[in-house]
Amino acid sequence: MSTPHPNTDVRMRGFTQRSAYDEAQLWLQRKIDQLNPIGSEKIPVFEAASRVLAKDVISRVHVPSFSRAMMDGYALRSTDIELASDARPIQLKVIGECFPGKKFERTVAPGQAVRIMTGAPLPLDVDAVLPVEKTQTNEGSIIVQQPLAAGKNFGQIGEDIQQGDIVLRRGRTLRPQDIGLLCSIGHSVVEVVGRPRVNLVITGSELLPAGQQPAGCQIVDSNGPMLSELVQRDGGLPHHLGILPDNREAIREALSQDADILIASGGSSVGQEDHVPILVAEQGELAIHGVAMRPAAPLGLGTLAGRLVFLLPGNPVASLCGYDLFAGRAVRSLGGHAPDLPHRKTTMKLAKEIQSPVGRTDYVRVEIVAGTLQPLVGCGASVLSSSCRAAGFVMVPGPSSGYPTGTDVEVFLYD
Amino acid sequence: MSTPHPNTDVRMRGFTQRSAYDEAQLWLQRKIDQLNPIGSEKIPVFEAASRVLAKDVISRVHVPSFSRAMMDGYALRSTDIELASDARPIQLKVIGECFPGKKFERTVAPGQAVRIMTGAPLPLDVDAVLPVEKTQTNEGSIIVQQPLAAGKNFGQIGEDIQQGDIVLRRGRTLRPQDIGLLCSIGHSVVEVVGRPRVNLVITGSELLPAGQQPAGCQIVDSNGPMLSELVQRDGGLPHHLGILPDNREAIREALSQDADILIASGGSSVGQEDHVPILVAEQGELAIHGVAMRPAAPLGLGTLAGRLVFLLPGNPVASLCGYDLFAGRAVRSLGGHAPDLPHRKTTMKLAKEIQSPVGRTDYVRVEIVAGTLQPLVGCGASVLSSSCRAAGFVMVPGPSSGYPTGTDVEVFLYD
Repeated sequence: MSTPHPNTDVRMRGFTQRSAYDEAQLWLQRKIDQLNPIGSEKIPVFEAASRVLAKDVISRVHVPSFSRAMMDGYALRSTDIELASDARPIQLKVIGECFPGKKFERTVAPGQAVRIMTGAPLPLDVDAVLPVEKTQTNEGSIIVQQPLAAGKNFGQIGEDIQQGDIVLRRGRTLRPQDIGLLCSIGHSVVEVVGRPRVNLVITGSELLPAGQQPAGCQIVDSNGPMLSELVQRDGGLPHHLGILPDNREAIREALSQDADILIASGGSSVGQEDHVPILVAEQGELAIHGVAMRPAAPLGLGTLAGRLVFLLPGNPVASLCGYDLFAGRAVRSLGGHAPDLPHRKTTMKLAKEIQSPVGRTDYVRVEIVAGTLQPLVGCGASVLSSSCRAAGFVMVPGPSSGYPTGTDVEVFLYD
Repeated sequence: MSTPHPNTDVRMRGFTQRSAYDEAQLWLQRKIDQLNPIGSEKIPVFEAASRVLAKDVISRVHVPSFSRAMMDGYALRSTDIELASDARPIQLKVIGECFPGKKFERTVAPGQAVRIMTGAPLPLDVDAVLPVEKTQTNEGSIIVQQPLAAGKNFGQIGEDIQQGDIVLRRGRTLRPQDIGLLCSIGHSVVEVVGRPRVNLVITGSELLPAGQQPAGCQIVDSNGPMLSELVQRDGGLPHHLGILPDNREAIREALSQDADILIASGGSSVGQEDHVPILVAEQGELAIHGVAMRPAAPLGLGTLAGRLVFLLPGNPVASLCGYDLFAGRAVRSLGGHAPDLPHRKTTMKLAKEIQSPVGRTDYVRVEIVAGTLQPLVGCGASVLSSSCRAAGFVMVPGPSSGYPTGTDVEVFLYD
């Protein structure tokens, strides 16, 4: 037997050196900063909820563009009733009615009032609206027993928005009420940050397309559908290129298709069927391959033709973890959203310790049991059902060796 | 002048009696309980993210359905290397390769190993996978210098999911990883709670349809687009019936169109153009009209032909508040979601006191300034831009008179 030598078969090289988690994140952030911002697009206001404004929105109009009654009542001259009291009720003649959307054309003389509906434009000569509840009627007149200050109960021109106001700022994620606001100033189209186009390159000769029944030694692609949903959650436009065979040419062709971000799942490790890292290294830059983290240790980061490429492990839990912590950050950032994890966070007590070797970053799925966190241990990265059972995850940073039982830790909730 | 008498014109009656907020919520909850659950529907798994399962999902298969390698390496018999050490390396002959998706048909004899890729089915006669990093190669053989326990580094049949397992329970809101899980067990269709159909009945002769420029004494409908987005956010299917004139017949016709929930905006108060409450009272039940709250005091709740009807004030902020606190609760509940406000919550210190009369429930919009909450005061219910400026809202329940400066209060964040 000849002298044994280290396994140097590049097709099956091991992860001899893993990058530190923070180093990988730093590399990613630098790349994101270089690529940002991606282009903007003009879209109908009705489709703009949850999109991110690419430009400040400036109003071209006053809102409202006329003085309008804020309640149902009587429009009157406040000076007419400044001495009104219980002891000295004042009677005003009701000379007409104001309806929303119609201008009241007649003059309102002293001693007169006009019945007015909420939203109706105020007649010219009045300066207050007396609520209907504070009046009594008497044969075409109203009786008023208290004074009312000028300016009461109607909205001034431009009270809500002045022409020229910046009503919403660039970078804002549009809320339902913002859509209403944009409509109120007459916008029908709005310029928003584009949705990053994310190509999903799912490889594996053993994979059946989602929707089929698993059989024999084949399994159904679960990463493709999961990643599609994750990309959509984060504001990206996923494009699933279909299940690719473990064939270098097919994968090369898929990686070359136009997109802002490439996410490869499966075939990303160091096995001889793992073409993706080799192709990325040959044709672009495979900056990071292997990260000191669990799960998702085989994660790779690189660029190809100026696009960010994420090599996610094929194991579903590792794929979820690698997406959330790395690829999702890019999808969110390029789409103009906050880069941070989108999960709701809360702080809860650990019912059981979490151990983690110093130097490794851990993504620990946890269940919530009786208001405390129970780490899911012994659930490998292939066990997707454990991520469905989990309520969320706890992060253990590299320098930490974990948390003892009873520690209050921050948990990122899956829903 | 004859004796003045209270204004009893039904067309302009005031809100002489307002319901307590809690009473209105109780009425609503009872109605929701009567209407729940609405029907279910079967939809493609790919469209099911964020939908609510109508039935438990039971797996018809084992996942995986075969034993598979969890890493790249060598499949071997653990007994062959139980005595391996640095001092006593053991050599195994590599007789072939296992690829994902292909069964390895040959026998593996003692002293032999098979190169295996992640995800490949394990050959019959082996019981462990040695990671590639822990081997050295030597002319068609590997050198092993440490033992490995049986069962290491491969996944057992049914390890993730057993046939017959309930993998996801009724009532669950489907997450991205759940979609992956459903695919992995061969589901292409899933039965979910239906999305409540919500008809939006927007009235006001002064309203222009969204997308137009405001002009003269007309204003653009902002409530319709805002409510559409809110309904969608809460899992409902909005149907905007267009701007209706203040015409009783047109409104009657709109209210009669099929839906699970009706939301009327505008024309819901006590003015003579306010046909909606009169129609609901005549043809159904107007259970609540006027609630001791601010904003949205003119809110109405009722039923019409067995459907829940919400009468929201036309003022945009009141409309937002009335939706979030009442109509949204019904949309969420009927769609199978948690009835509570969907907003993220946090606790922050008040930079300025909030005053609220005892007996009235207040929805107070707040800005966040230097990490503290600043109530937006003096912003009427017509000022939609204030809800865009606000970061969220604080609730002041009826029995409370408000909160002094410096109090830690819970804030519901708009985004």
